[in-house]
Amino acid sequence: MKLLRVGPAGAERPALLDREGTVRDLGGIVPEIDGALLADPAALARIAAAEAEGTLPALDPALRVGPPLAGIGKIVCIGLNYHDHAAETGAQPPAEPVVFMKAPDTVVGPHDTVLVPRGSEKTDWEVELAVVIGRTLRYAASHEEAMAAVAGYAVAHDVSEREFQIERGGQWDKGKNCETFNPLGPWLVTADEVPDPQALPLKLWVNGELKQDGSTASQIFPVAEVVRYLSQFMTLYPGDVINTGTPAGVALGQPDPKPYLKAGDVVELSIEGLGTQRQEFKQA
Amino acid sequence: MKLLRVGPAGAERPALLDREGTVRDLGGIVPEIDGALLADPAALARIAAAEAEGTLPALDPALRVGPPLAGIGKIVCIGLNYHDHAAETGAQPPAEPVVFMKAPDTVVGPHDTVLVPRGSEKTDWEVELAVVIGRTLRYAASHEEAMAAVAGYAVAHDVSEREFQIERGGQWDKGKNCETFNPLGPWLVTADEVPDPQALPLKLWVNGELKQDGSTASQIFPVAEVVRYLSQFMTLYPGDVINTGTPAGVALGQPDPKPYLKAGDVVELSIEGLGTQRQEFKQA
Repeated sequence: MKLLRVGPAGAERPALLDREGTVRDLGGIVPEIDGALLADPAALARIAAAEAEGTLPALDPALRVGPPLAGIGKIVCIGLNYHDHAAETGAQPPAEPVVFMKAPDTVVGPHDTVLVPRGSEKTDWEVELAVVIGRTLRYAASHEEAMAAVAGYAVAHDVSEREFQIERGGQWDKGKNCETFNPLGPWLVTADEVPDPQALPLKLWVNGELKQDGSTASQIFPVAEVVRYLSQFMTLYPGDVINTGTPAGVALGQPDPKPYLKAGDVVELSIEGLGTQRQEFKQA
Repeated sequence: MKLLRVGPAGAERPALLDREGTVRDLGGIVPEIDGALLADPAALARIAAAEAEGTLPALDPALRVGPPLAGIGKIVCIGLNYHDHAAETGAQPPAEPVVFMKAPDTVVGPHDTVLVPRGSEKTDWEVELAVVIGRTLRYAASHEEAMAAVAGYAVAHDVSEREFQIERGGQWDKGKNCETFNPLGPWLVTADEVPDPQALPLKLWVNGELKQDGSTASQIFPVAEVVRYLSQFMTLYPGDVINTGTPAGVALGQPDPKPYLKAGDVVELSIEGLGTQRQEFKQA
């Protein structure tokens, strides 16, 4: 299933994108698309049954699309998780996953405005596969146990300010948590519709020019290992999100002068089967 | 006022510690102690009026004390923020605040069990002054504007696994987000009762032995500067928490063999006016 949330920011309704591409209202079936829903097989079955019956009301296709998940508990991010991206930043491929965090309050809808922070000269793009957790997981003993905790997938834009991230004290979080820095969606695609998360092409364009053109096949640590690994260091809960890293092609990896983002730029990004985002950048 | 939450984990009631030291029920006055309450002067005034009237029912003093704040949005942490602690870890005093994050799901009550992670050999203690935000703040122009966004203060225990933090990939978050790693409380003391947050003695004992004995007077970046600074990089919201760093005396700063925590150890910590915590450590 493709789950989404539509309507004004902060007042979105749960919805379903059906197989014909129509956005249908789930407001009569479930209260919200959140960790509680993802941890509730009966509620997910009610949605599937309602879709099969064809009784869900259609919604205005012009409604704003919000982030497809409410009540996110934490966003754990993996750094340098593609061989080509590690190389372009001048880093060695990491021996084990590099872990940093974004606050859930950085999440916006897939087509919302993204703000270039005040004082920023190095705002950069990163298309990423986001993994959404649906079951509490601690100390997973196997990749199978880890994957059983994955509820679904989405497109994430891990917007990053490189000076704040790298040159202002060393810990990356400082450049990863500016407001609006995590567009998510348009859809939360349930795991049953993504049979192989290591075979997903992902692309990103700036002002129409293709900048990133990768595949999750190039991840150093695949999804199953990322989830298993993280569960050794923290407990993962339903509604948590993992941004699994970005392939090559970010501004940081380009020759000088690097083409960092500025107000007026338009970024589009997509992952096959998970939908497309489009953001206009403005000044904070 | 001293606000707290009492009762079983996940089912705490809002409460007040009155001037006589009696825990009183706020369940009839406000639904919860959270960001929404802290951002609502009328609700805070209702609590103060009820306390003055002496009409609040007393609660069983034996009730478990939970974390004093529900619905925490993010926990932003400042590293190496005391001259003596920076020195003991072999680091130069930072030129600007070092910023990392803990997930809100690491928060437990002040007397709850803390778990030594599986595979951990370097679990360490850190007593910290936590700042609780009560007003949305972005790009604060002055220390006065920053301090106007501070709702109150609490004791935080920034439990840290040093191998995970430093030796396993470089970003500190990996050693800061193990389950139960952020005891908070017992109280959220409103800012009006803490006239000078830079004059607070803070202490920590392990198995009865004094290990940390510092004062917020030794902070490199005082609270007003930490809050102002952070608001240049992220938006702070009501219900956000800032752990402002720890003074000298952690296990990491001791001669080898460093006395890291193990199951059975008991840690007590206190900040003058903000209360005392006591945790028994067990194996995860």
